[in-house]
Amino acid sequence: MENGDITFHTRKWVRPEDLNANGTLFGGSLLRWIDEEAAIYAIVQLGNGMAVTKYMSEINFVSSAQQGDLIEMGLTATHFGRTSLTMRAEVRNMFTRQSILTIEKIVFVNLGEDGQPAPHGFTEITYSRDRVPRQHLDAVRRSAEQA
Amino acid sequence: MENGDITFHTRKWVRPEDLNANGTLFGGSLLRWIDEEAAIYAIVQLGNGMAVTKYMSEINFVSSAQQGDLIEMGLTATHFGRTSLTMRAEVRNMFTRQSILTIEKIVFVNLGEDGQPAPHGFTEITYSRDRVPRQHLDAVRRSAEQA
Amino acid sequence: MENGDITFHTRKWVRPEDLNANGTLFGGSLLRWIDEEAAIYAIVQLGNGMAVTKYMSEINFVSSAQQGDLIEMGLTATHFGRTSLTMRAEVRNMFTRQSILTIEKIVFVNLGEDGQPAPHGFTEITYSRDRVPRQHLDAVRRSAEQA
Amino acid sequence: MENGDITFHTRKWVRPEDLNANGTLFGGSLLRWIDEEAAIYAIVQLGNGMAVTKYMSEINFVSSAQQGDLIEMGLTATHFGRTSLTMRAEVRNMFTRQSILTIEKIVFVNLGEDGQPAPHGFTEITYSRDRVPRQHLDAVRRSAEQA
Amino acid sequence: MENGDITFHTRKWVRPEDLNANGTLFGGSLLRWIDEEAAIYAIVQLGNGMAVTKYMSEINFVSSAQQGDLIEMGLTATHFGRTSLTMRAEVRNMFTRQSILTIEKIVFVNLGEDGQPAPHGFTEITYSRDRVPRQHLDAVRRSAEQA
Amino acid sequence: MENGDITFHTRKWVRPEDLNANGTLFGGSLLRWIDEEAAIYAIVQLGNGMAVTKYMSEINFVSSAQQGDLIEMGLTATHFGRTSLTMRAEVRNMFTRQSILTIEKIVFVNLGEDGQPAPHGFTEITYSRDRVPRQHLDAVRRSAEQA
Repeated sequence: MENGDITFHTRKWVRPEDLNANGTLFGGSLLRWIDEEAAIYAIVQLGNGMAVTKYMSEINFVSSAQQGDLIEMGLTATHFGRTSLTMRAEVRNMFTRQSILTIEKIVFVNLGEDGQPAPHGFTEITYSRDRVPRQHLDAVRRSAEQA
Repeated sequence: MENGDITFHTRKWVRPEDLNANGTLFGGSLLRWIDEEAAIYAIVQLGNGMAVTKYMSEINFVSSAQQGDLIEMGLTATHFGRTSLTMRAEVRNMFTRQSILTIEKIVFVNLGEDGQPAPHGFTEITYSRDRVPRQHLDAVRRSAEQA
Repeated sequence: MENGDITFHTRKWVRPEDLNANGTLFGGSLLRWIDEEAAIYAIVQLGNGMAVTKYMSEINFVSSAQQGDLIEMGLTATHFGRTSLTMRAEVRNMFTRQSILTIEKIVFVNLGEDGQPAPHGFTEITYSRDRVPRQHLDAVRRSAEQA
Repeated sequence: MENGDITFHTRKWVRPEDLNANGTLFGGSLLRWIDEEAAIYAIVQLGNGMAVTKYMSEINFVSSAQQGDLIEMGLTATHFGRTSLTMRAEVRNMFTRQSILTIEKIVFVNLGEDGQPAPHGFTEITYSRDRVPRQHLDAVRRSAEQA
Repeated sequence: MENGDITFHTRKWVRPEDLNANGTLFGGSLLRWIDEEAAIYAIVQLGNGMAVTKYMSEINFVSSAQQGDLIEMGLTATHFGRTSLTMRAEVRNMFTRQSILTIEKIVFVNLGEDGQPAPHGFTEITYSRDRVPRQHLDAVRRSAEQA
Repeated sequence: MENGDITFHTRKWVRPEDLNANGTLFGGSLLRWIDEEAAIYAIVQLGNGMAVTKYMSEINFVSSAQQGDLIEMGLTATHFGRTSLTMRAEVRNMFTRQSILTIEKIVFVNLGEDGQPAPHGFTEITYSRDRVPRQHLDAVRRSAEQA
């Protein structure tokens, strides 16, 4: 798998509270971390805080992690649908760069104010933070005026 | 999807700490709960505490849940490989019985003392707790003698 | 103590985050788990999400649990008062079936919309999910119509 | 109930993560807090970190608490057995001083190095910290020499 | 550093979930605990639940703590500004009394109903609970009438 | 304050469990997050998992955050001592880029195998992951051989 375009942001230092009863990283913690990171990535791409996980496919638990390991979460958008966004995800060890978990497709759906799927109007990845969710617009405007 | 053979055990009462920033059930909590339940189910079927998540496929987030909802986690074994166990999982609302999440395949691998995949020797589901992990054998024996 | 009628549902795999400083299962985690399970049981019996813990009596910590143990939470209704429900609870090891904790009486009170104790109208245990809390009624109806 | 001799130490500010699905303080959080406080009190009285909860009796949930409330945990030793310590506990609102929860008897057992009940040799409450657990003795000695 | 006037209240028993990946007390847990304790202290002094952390200065991590250690959190007000309160904080080992962390200045600001800094009207420490936040006034009055 | 050289990695989506009793971001959660991020940054710079927080100075809580806000944690090394590393930290809103918290100096100390401060031998920031902690060396070598 080539990760050319995946960008890694959030990092974790594996602590005792993240371990399963065998002393290795608990799969449930891993899934919780990547789901939060995917939500953040989707909000930035769709400019909408009301985006929800709809589908995940093909989660491979490639290798494990131990207490003390540093790991990082990475995502990239692979497809913009009319009301959806598809992403590829990878969690990897920060030093060895070995994959811990890969997910081929995480699909988020963009919701309108009525809670139903709504067109988001985007077709390409943004690398800046120019798609500001409605609820943050005022704060951004105030902040710009002060600058 | 027919759930004839899925048995539901663990239950959750959705509380504020389980919500995402939109006030609905956080997908990460859901995945954490079902991964723990799958681990428990696998340990009971394989009689081995050293069983780890290897693969998940096709997670459908069918519907959401709200604060105050009661939900339950269900699993059934669908295939016994030589060193692996495949399960189907469903999380549903306890009252409406509507699916919240379904996972067609969760594959756990049975590990030996060396941490490598090892044959488990089983081919069928057990509905009793007759496959006792090594580490619990003594306790079970003592308990039986006292009865 | 005979548990003929106690049914066990929720399960836990004891992980490092559940341990006290001596490395055995933290009593506070245990009490937290059984209180949540009792709330769920009471809601199912009383058909009301507004049921609160009023009294617990006689908690015996019969034996302990270790990291890696599988345990399960069980409850049964023992008395239906006019506005209250009394339950007996047991937490036990899934393999040895040895009791970890028993509580003779957990009393929940059924609250009305004004937050005061209100008659619940039930006198016997239900084994189906036919007592649907008001807040879930619509969802159940919609779900039935789709079936 | 008179609390003349109960001393209150640990305090909590009730936050969203402590609430049940009805938006009031989750009983399980309350029990978790008082169990930890009782363990600390017992360790100070018995000079032994290996003291475990054996029995609780008569937990009355007198009143509830809301988000934003300040509450405090109090304990007092009521009986020193040969290998056990009995305490009375109360959780109350810091401003109104109204009881939230009272427990007539919490019994801890003092364990020896073999994990079995062992005599602790005390018959009265200490109000200083003069019963230092074995594992902390060296640290206390070093600290005294530096002073 | 003299702690003559610092009063210690909240206590913690260091458990596995509080450790960092090196097996010593996680600094982040420590900061979380002292911030909550400072908030409680400030609310008691200012009689206002709407008091927020504004500034901390000079945090010295003097020594570490291990699993099983008992530690306690202490605070004292050192300055009453017009809309602010300055405190000094210390976390120490309960048995050795050795400092684990000291903070020279924690400044909280008193907020009015509009969320802006507001005069609090106090100039000296209170050792009773006579400064009751608005939101708790009714409860205190009812409680007094029942007594 | 100019952040030219601060790089932001870990992100958080503020959820109900992160709020204080006033419904804004709990200061203790914020401090916990930045302390973990600082530890990770220090480990990458010093190539040593045994690096501990020694000192923090000047924490300004510049603005608050609400449920649903996206925030990011940033750090940069400002001074390499013989056995220490000094960093500057900032937490900010991802969309408005407004500071939530700034810390002028976070000092970590590099520990040797005996738990005492030890020279780390570095004088400049690394932007790659070329300073591999001893405990990860084998894994990195194996990973390189497979590539």
